Amino acid sequence: MLLTNAQIVTLQRDDDFGLIADGAIALDGDRIGWVGSAGDVPDVYRTHKIRDLGGRLVTPALIDCHSHIVFGGNRASEFELRLNGASYEEVARAGGGIVSTVTATRAASTETLLADALTRVDAMIAEGVTMIEVKSGYGLDCDTELKMLRVARQIARVRPVDIKTSFLGAHAIPAEYMGKADAYIDDVCIPTLRAAHAEGLVDAVDGFCEGIAFDATQIARVFDVAVELGLPVKLHAEQLSNIGGARLAAKYGALSADHVEYVTLADAQAMGAASVIAVVLPGAFYTLRETQVPPIQAFRDNGVAMALATDCNPGSSPLVSPLLAMNMGCTLFHMTPLEALLGVTAHAAAALGETDRGRIVTGARADLCVWHAGHPAELSYRIGFNPLHSRIFRGSI
Amino acid sequence: MLLTNAQIVTLQRDDDFGLIADGAIALDGDRIGWVGSAGDVPDVYRTHKIRDLGGRLVTPALIDCHSHIVFGGNRASEFELRLNGASYEEVARAGGGIVSTVTATRAASTETLLADALTRVDAMIAEGVTMIEVKSGYGLDCDTELKMLRVARQIARVRPVDIKTSFLGAHAIPAEYMGKADAYIDDVCIPTLRAAHAEGLVDAVDGFCEGIAFDATQIARVFDVAVELGLPVKLHAEQLSNIGGARLAAKYGALSADHVEYVTLADAQAMGAASVIAVVLPGAFYTLRETQVPPIQAFRDNGVAMALATDCNPGSSPLVSPLLAMNMGCTLFHMTPLEALLGVTAHAAAALGETDRGRIVTGARADLCVWHAGHPAELSYRIGFNPLHSRIFRGSI
Ligand SMILES: [Zn+2]
Ligand SMILES: [Zn+2]
Repeated sequence: MLLTNAQIVTLQRDDDFGLIADGAIALDGDRIGWVGSAGDVPDVYRTHKIRDLGGRLVTPALIDCHSHIVFGGNRASEFELRLNGASYEEVARAGGGIVSTVTATRAASTETLLADALTRVDAMIAEGVTMIEVKSGYGLDCDTELKMLRVARQIARVRPVDIKTSFLGAHAIPAEYMGKADAYIDDVCIPTLRAAHAEGLVDAVDGFCEGIAFDATQIARVFDVAVELGLPVKLHAEQLSNIGGARLAAKYGALSADHVEYVTLADAQAMGAASVIAVVLPGAFYTLRETQVPPIQAFRDNGVAMALATDCNPGSSPLVSPLLAMNMGCTLFHMTPLEALLGVTAHAAAALGETDRGRIVTGARADLCVWHAGHPAELSYRIGFNPLHSRIFRGSI
Repeated sequence: MLLTNAQIVTLQRDDDFGLIADGAIALDGDRIGWVGSAGDVPDVYRTHKIRDLGGRLVTPALIDCHSHIVFGGNRASEFELRLNGASYEEVARAGGGIVSTVTATRAASTETLLADALTRVDAMIAEGVTMIEVKSGYGLDCDTELKMLRVARQIARVRPVDIKTSFLGAHAIPAEYMGKADAYIDDVCIPTLRAAHAEGLVDAVDGFCEGIAFDATQIARVFDVAVELGLPVKLHAEQLSNIGGARLAAKYGALSADHVEYVTLADAQAMGAASVIAVVLPGAFYTLRETQVPPIQAFRDNGVAMALATDCNPGSSPLVSPLLAMNMGCTLFHMTPLEALLGVTAHAAAALGETDRGRIVTGARADLCVWHAGHPAELSYRIGFNPLHSRIFRGSI
């Protein structure tokens, strides 16, 4: 197929949208065979079936590189309790917090977990998403962690979307191990990682490095197993404080360090030197009413690529819209519209270890979005509006 | 028609969702004939055609009581310029600010204005909106103000939605009257109001009372004409500073005072005494990165009903999602989920002078939403997600 009459946002480099005003894209199976100006289409593609895009904007398809989209229940009642003035203790006594999601996820059947997740996945697909990262971490026991990852894999079988899984056994300390974080890591987290890996359920290994979760030493023990298994690592780091997560991520050559509000200049330098991507998550910043903005300028100055994601989760970010994450990245973090778009395309792909997508270049995956828009800045400018015209996944509309 | 197997959020009072767990609603033409528990359906409705809602949540349909949804162009390039570090002067020199929207709106044909507005109206309808307030105010000359209001009326002819118009000639001082605000009010604004009213285009009269627009004395001259014409008034008041707008609104018995970030306790008391509704607009607060939160507790303490709206406009709030406005009301302004829902239903109706809708009671308009949700708090809890199952407008699905 030959897509014609398109305004193409190639993102071939990081310093420019790489706009082609009157462009064409040749699709070769699930790959981009050629991209360029309408007048330069090679003869071999001129006989292909033509699809006129009516002058619309074409970008790489969107990628959500940080989500907890598989979970049981929701936390609307806790949201309401807090807004009605309940204290954290009262919310906890009412069964709120992550504990409630762990309980609901353990209790849920595979079918219910999948059906609930699909309502959110479908909303993302409707915004032009073709790849979603999905984490475990609401099981915190072997059976439920495996159940979550199997549901994640199942999503890619029932919907036209790619799924990348991250094992996040080191997400929180379950009630039965309270005060025994080391024992949880050794007795549950690491054996579960090995079991999940043996079943082919793990694309990367993640952790939550924070005062309320695990320290860098505990995370390092999990990362050592990841290295042994040949799995890439990533980390929830410096969201609420700085306890060395970003440096740990740099030391292990992690794909990404995520949240990163409290990253220091030295951390940013280490991340840049180790090519660790900063995944910023404005949905959690917004929901938690945080005030510490990630050091965007330090990332720019140190060559740290920035990705943007929804962090879709039932507690701190019940956000399912990558487009809204783009607007929040601009409004709350002062990112530019170019950075926001790179953050949900090329840099999101890189944060998932994928180098063959997220830019419109020859040979890349033909995952594209066609938008009712005249300029790429419109995608982050609007709030709560979906201008998607059509989505192309693996070369098919 | 008899809607059965519904979880009904009646909002019959302001202190409670008024939930009916296993409820039924009888539709009589475009009115609600009866509402109550499934077991209590009167005999006269038992023979009606039944529609089983599968246990889903039913609320009054949503109402957006403050929008500037008709406008020319968009301001994405200005959004981008600012984020790339341009100063206000540079943005102004590049033709940015409200001037750019006035220029684009004056230049646009009726057809283009309508087509552009419909993309946004359709997004609102998709979220369950059945009534939208639409302001003029990007013409600032007689022809364009009338053109905008005619487009607003046209929307209700081509879409299943009610439109309430507000004449907002006193929105900004056009370039040709810079430094001559009084002359603009006398020579353009008031004559245009009279012309628009004569054509049946005006449901209410609005103004922008702010240091960068008009002072309370100038607005009062416009309001005096509204009173003479028998039109209700409303006001953009105390958004960026306090210059007496809320007191003016109270003095004139306005339907609402909108934005109201800088309202004082005395203002809130005056609003309560005069039954002026506070319309809070978190989309603009968010976009402008404001820090002064409206005095929600003072409104509660003084019996000021609160409405919530998108303020949909191309500059300070390119927001088209009332559901997201609800989440922002909770997250940014600490409103409760009940207040957020009242704010886009019963209180939004009241802010538009409508007393027969926004609550599910006998005799009210049969404008309803059916949601994929288990509890009304879920509507404000999620971010950027639309759980609408179906929308009932004037008794028709
Ligand atoms: Zn996360
Ligand atoms: Zn307004």
